[in-house]
Amino acid sequence: MSNYNEMWRSLGLNMEAHDRLLQALPPTYHDVYLTQPNRPQGLEYFDFVVNEIHGLRIQELQEHKQNGGKVIGAFCVFVPEEIVRAAGGICIGLCSGIDIGAAEAEKVLPRNICPLIKSFMGFKLAKICPYFESCDMVVGETTCDGKKKAFEILNDYVPVHVMETPQMKRGRDRELWLEEVRDFARLVEETTGNRLTTETLAKSIREVNGKRRALRRLAELRKNDPAPISGLDSLLIEQIAMYDDVERFTGKVNELCDELDKKVQTGEGVFPSGTPRVIVTGTPMAIPNWKVPHLIETSGAVIVAEELCTGLRYFENEVAEDAGAMDAMLENVAARYLGVNCAVFTPNTGRMERLVQLVREYNADGVIHCALSFCDPYAVEANRVEKVLKEENIPLLKIETGYDQEDAGQLKTRIEAFIEMLG
Amino acid sequence: MSNYNEMWRSLGLNMEAHDRLLQALPPTYHDVYLTQPNRPQGLEYFDFVVNEIHGLRIQELQEHKQNGGKVIGAFCVFVPEEIVRAAGGICIGLCSGIDIGAAEAEKVLPRNICPLIKSFMGFKLAKICPYFESCDMVVGETTCDGKKKAFEILNDYVPVHVMETPQMKRGRDRELWLEEVRDFARLVEETTGNRLTTETLAKSIREVNGKRRALRRLAELRKNDPAPISGLDSLLIEQIAMYDDVERFTGKVNELCDELDKKVQTGEGVFPSGTPRVIVTGTPMAIPNWKVPHLIETSGAVIVAEELCTGLRYFENEVAEDAGAMDAMLENVAARYLGVNCAVFTPNTGRMERLVQLVREYNADGVIHCALSFCDPYAVEANRVEKVLKEENIPLLKIETGYDQEDAGQLKTRIEAFIEMLG
Ligand code: SF4
Ligand code: SF4
Ligand code: SF4
Ligand code: SF4
Repeated sequence: MSNYNEMWRSLGLNMEAHDRLLQALPPTYHDVYLTQPNRPQGLEYFDFVVNEIHGLRIQELQEHKQNGGKVIGAFCVFVPEEIVRAAGGICIGLCSGIDIGAAEAEKVLPRNICPLIKSFMGFKLAKICPYFESCDMVVGETTCDGKKKAFEILNDYVPVHVMETPQMKRGRDRELWLEEVRDFARLVEETTGNRLTTETLAKSIREVNGKRRALRRLAELRKNDPAPISGLDSLLIEQIAMYDDVERFTGKVNELCDELDKKVQTGEGVFPSGTPRVIVTGTPMAIPNWKVPHLIETSGAVIVAEELCTGLRYFENEVAEDAGAMDAMLENVAARYLGVNCAVFTPNTGRMERLVQLVREYNADGVIHCALSFCDPYAVEANRVEKVLKEENIPLLKIETGYDQEDAGQLKTRIEAFIEMLG
Repeated sequence: MSNYNEMWRSLGLNMEAHDRLLQALPPTYHDVYLTQPNRPQGLEYFDFVVNEIHGLRIQELQEHKQNGGKVIGAFCVFVPEEIVRAAGGICIGLCSGIDIGAAEAEKVLPRNICPLIKSFMGFKLAKICPYFESCDMVVGETTCDGKKKAFEILNDYVPVHVMETPQMKRGRDRELWLEEVRDFARLVEETTGNRLTTETLAKSIREVNGKRRALRRLAELRKNDPAPISGLDSLLIEQIAMYDDVERFTGKVNELCDELDKKVQTGEGVFPSGTPRVIVTGTPMAIPNWKVPHLIETSGAVIVAEELCTGLRYFENEVAEDAGAMDAMLENVAARYLGVNCAVFTPNTGRMERLVQLVREYNADGVIHCALSFCDPYAVEANRVEKVLKEENIPLLKIETGYDQEDAGQLKTRIEAFIEMLG
């Protein structure tokens, strides 16, 4: 990818640190992804995207910007992509899954904080993420304490607009959130210089829904036994969904699904029929955080669904397409987002209910709850998950882990024991 | 206090665990409090209250309940005491400052969580707090992630009403909070069986303001050099403010202030004039958490103010007394609470501004920032405090610590070095 050096330099990247990142990725990707058995052909595109993660896509963003377009970065699936898109902008997920900037981040953050937060702060401070450096605007939210407060610090380095996500889902919370979405729409108009119209917003809603539908189609295929695609590959696609071009991505996912349809008809799968089936739930797994899924799928189980924000929570709910007026459309947008079962809400019973449904729908044998270290919302809610799954006699393994590999051996032992119990 | 055994048993306390708590307290209190030099006489009452912490005051609560009164417990200074009081109830602060129930709490909570949260959960699960067991209703809030999510678990053991505190302080947040306060007023009416009237609420507002004013008077006296009272003793009074009878407490604080007035006139103080003056800021120090103040005041400094919720944040703002109608009164109540500079708000610039003012007003030489371990709101905001104090050339020491004594030696070394630098 060295032919992109000039572009990276022009983005002000710290070339040395960035090189280190680029050198770390390919061997990991090879070991985790390219060694998997029976991979569908349609994954070629996604392999290519990862290969070009800081190259081609960044070039596209630069071209977009040269043509007057804006790039808006977000750290949470609560930021309404359809609004950015309707105003001609590109919305990019910035949640980061590697601890390469941790030392830098610890200059401004406490050591004992969620690695995802440390990661994005480190990326900014060390200037190693070309997505981050391509953003014209960065949007935070008041979801968890760590992020909410870290955005105040991040704002020293890049202007951050913070959306107030409510903490409950009652009428008054919906109203507050709707106002936040309206403010956001106005801000996006200002930033892009383009006014939203009912046409552009309706189109954008359809397109983003199309992406969600393609991902749902992929998810549905995983209900089959044998599963036609691994959990690792599915996660990768869900991670790429956060930053790839919406229409191209949608097309490629649908092409892959066409292939998987045939595999399902002929009973082909990535692992033998009867392989223990696991659902993963918890905190988001941002690219390139593949640690736990890799451990699971090299320990004799297949992951059939991710109840994660890099997973079902990202694409399960669509924005209703029944509105014609701007106000009603924005209401539909706002309402869709409050359907996301994030642990920052209290209570978050929807997540527990959905999890039990998913176990039935996907014929899963057990659930693995993965919380990033120091994530209070998910680590505490794990107790609620445990309670409900126990009532339903669904086996559960609870994991708390960060981005380092120190605990990989110990985790593998626990995961193997759990899967053996399921099998 | 063994003559209260029957009462404790009737409250369902775990007598064995409770005994352990009662045995731990007096020696600690002796070592931390009774060995201080030049203690004002008026502290006798507060010593007595601590001595009777699980005795006389609990008996009063029981008598109140026998007469049909209700007791409402809270974990945050955001729960409007004046509303409870106006309906004839007693409002009790339940924030707990000791790790005696930690093992029990860790059965339902992650190990890496704020000790204050672990403490109240442990108190409930192990049944060792007679205040907790006296509550007819317990009120939580959505301030920090850890508490917000822990209340869902606590609700398995005792019904918890959760007030949604907003995360910003704009118009829409004020509206949301006002609605929460109105709901709370209704709930308190239901629970107590007493309707709020403009008379009872006005009276209650005046009385609780009176408590705040007495505490402010005490705080003002500490501006003198030499300080007429130690930080440890002031903290104790601020801690007792959370659960003592409002009118008696107010009277006793004012009596103490009369005594201190005289000391100030004659130039008497607890430490020599010229002793380095420190302001403590950060997370609440719930009774009996005296760890850091004890280290500070045995290392050559005097604490002249606590920018804490067990401190200035508790009593600096009064509820305006200018309203005559119920609605306007509730608005005044709601508005007062949003004046509290808690780190769960974003941004929380009011705290930084106030801190700088306090350093000037109290003639402080430095600031010690104390965050409880794993408290993201305060640990991350410490960076903001650092930034502002650096701009103002105010020395700062940042501490993160829990309830155990393991790090006491190390902390003492750091605190001594900091104070030496100030002197
Ligand atoms: S887990 Fe919650 S905070 Fe994180 S991306 Fe999902 S919705 Fe946002
Ligand atoms: S994983 Fe948890 S602590 Fe980390 S950013 Fe997400 S919600 Fe916050
Ligand atoms: S620090 Fe914040 S959450 Fe804690 S008692 Fe104070 S206002 Fe409440
Ligand atoms: S000290 Fe921090 S983490 Fe603990 S209860 Fe208070 S705000 Fe929450």
